[in-house]
Amino acid sequence: MKKINVGRKILSENEKYAFENVLFFHKHKKLCLNMISSPGSGKTTILIRTINELKDKIKIGVIEGDIQTDIDARRIKATKAPVVQINTDGACHLTAPQISAALEKLPVDDLDMIFIENVGNLVCPSDFDLGENGKVVVLSVAEGDDKPAKYPGIFAKSRVLLINKIDLLGAGTQVDFDIERAKDDARKLNKDIEIFPLSAKTGEGLAAWCDWLIKSAQNPASGFTA
Amino acid sequence: MKKINVGRKILSENEKYAFENVLFFHKHKKLCLNMISSPGSGKTTILIRTINELKDKIKIGVIEGDIQTDIDARRIKATKAPVVQINTDGACHLTAPQISAALEKLPVDDLDMIFIENVGNLVCPSDFDLGENGKVVVLSVAEGDDKPAKYPGIFAKSRVLLINKIDLLGAGTQVDFDIERAKDDARKLNKDIEIFPLSAKTGEGLAAWCDWLIKSAQNPASGFTA
Repeated sequence: MKKINVGRKILSENEKYAFENVLFFHKHKKLCLNMISSPGSGKTTILIRTINELKDKIKIGVIEGDIQTDIDARRIKATKAPVVQINTDGACHLTAPQISAALEKLPVDDLDMIFIENVGNLVCPSDFDLGENGKVVVLSVAEGDDKPAKYPGIFAKSRVLLINKIDLLGAGTQVDFDIERAKDDARKLNKDIEIFPLSAKTGEGLAAWCDWLIKSAQNPASGFTA
Repeated sequence: MKKINVGRKILSENEKYAFENVLFFHKHKKLCLNMISSPGSGKTTILIRTINELKDKIKIGVIEGDIQTDIDARRIKATKAPVVQINTDGACHLTAPQISAALEKLPVDDLDMIFIENVGNLVCPSDFDLGENGKVVVLSVAEGDDKPAKYPGIFAKSRVLLINKIDLLGAGTQVDFDIERAKDDARKLNKDIEIFPLSAKTGEGLAAWCDWLIKSAQNPASGFTA
């Protein structure tokens, strides 16, 4: 991809590529969401369920970030969605140059939107702009309702909070999680954050998230900050 | 604490302090374990349960690492164990200089061992030697059994793997986790890793972990690599 001079003198390598990616998404009118969470919050399962649910409505491509293995990319591939795997080989976050290179391998013109699944890490990925239209933070109820207060950075910067695995809150399980506490703490950090409690396993709550995605994919630039 | 020249020319600031800490633990004959996991795996709950269980057998002090808040330190304090809180203010891991400073605030002579609870992050803390006698990685069954394969660094470097929240594996829950798969993958990376499946909530499996701790606190240097 050609480098574009965006007129600022001192930019980090990551910022330069992030700005290129912003212009790329703008030019191609594609929504790009950067999904961030701890390991095991259910990012991949949410993506698979979302892709299948929206199959006849919007075409989704995925950039998969993992330290090692292509376990997640193979799971996404089973949905028939186009997917590009990035292995960071130990690094704790994806970078904008990696996204720039991955975009060249995706059939972008055939897609309505692109999900980036970042490395499982609730801290570092929030500091690296990939040029996305918005960040989506995923928190599983098994992780505890104190996480927005304890890891404020990513909740402050995200456009959407998905509270996953709400199926674990049913009677007879040992998971304590106060959804209202998590919502309140997230909104104290970020009053505009959209919050969808859901279970990627049972499908509960998925419809509201999918409706939001359809609307946002139709008008990628509105309401987002990168 | 006085700086000690350990004879190597080029050491990072972190390494210098890590070596000081190694010598400190050696001199004071104290076991120090560095606990690492994703956010919400249950590190604090395991510590509380362990401290209470071992109250009459070994005296435990805690260094609590968090990006923000003293939620965890306050929970530990309720057990009456001495605790020092470190807030990293955004940083994704603890450093050896922070541990060195915290040790000055702990009544080390009254303790048998020290736990460091690192920032919730399965990636970065594994790259920073704190001078500990060993790392303890915690994986909750809610995170999935593929985590040793996907985040190999910390599993390769840890002395102990605690597989927590096994109470969620009972009938009627939605959690799929193959303990044998996780064990096999961890042992492929690290044939000597000690593995204790347990539930900090119900206490199941805790006895074996506590026995191991008592034995290790009596002989802190044996069998550990920093």
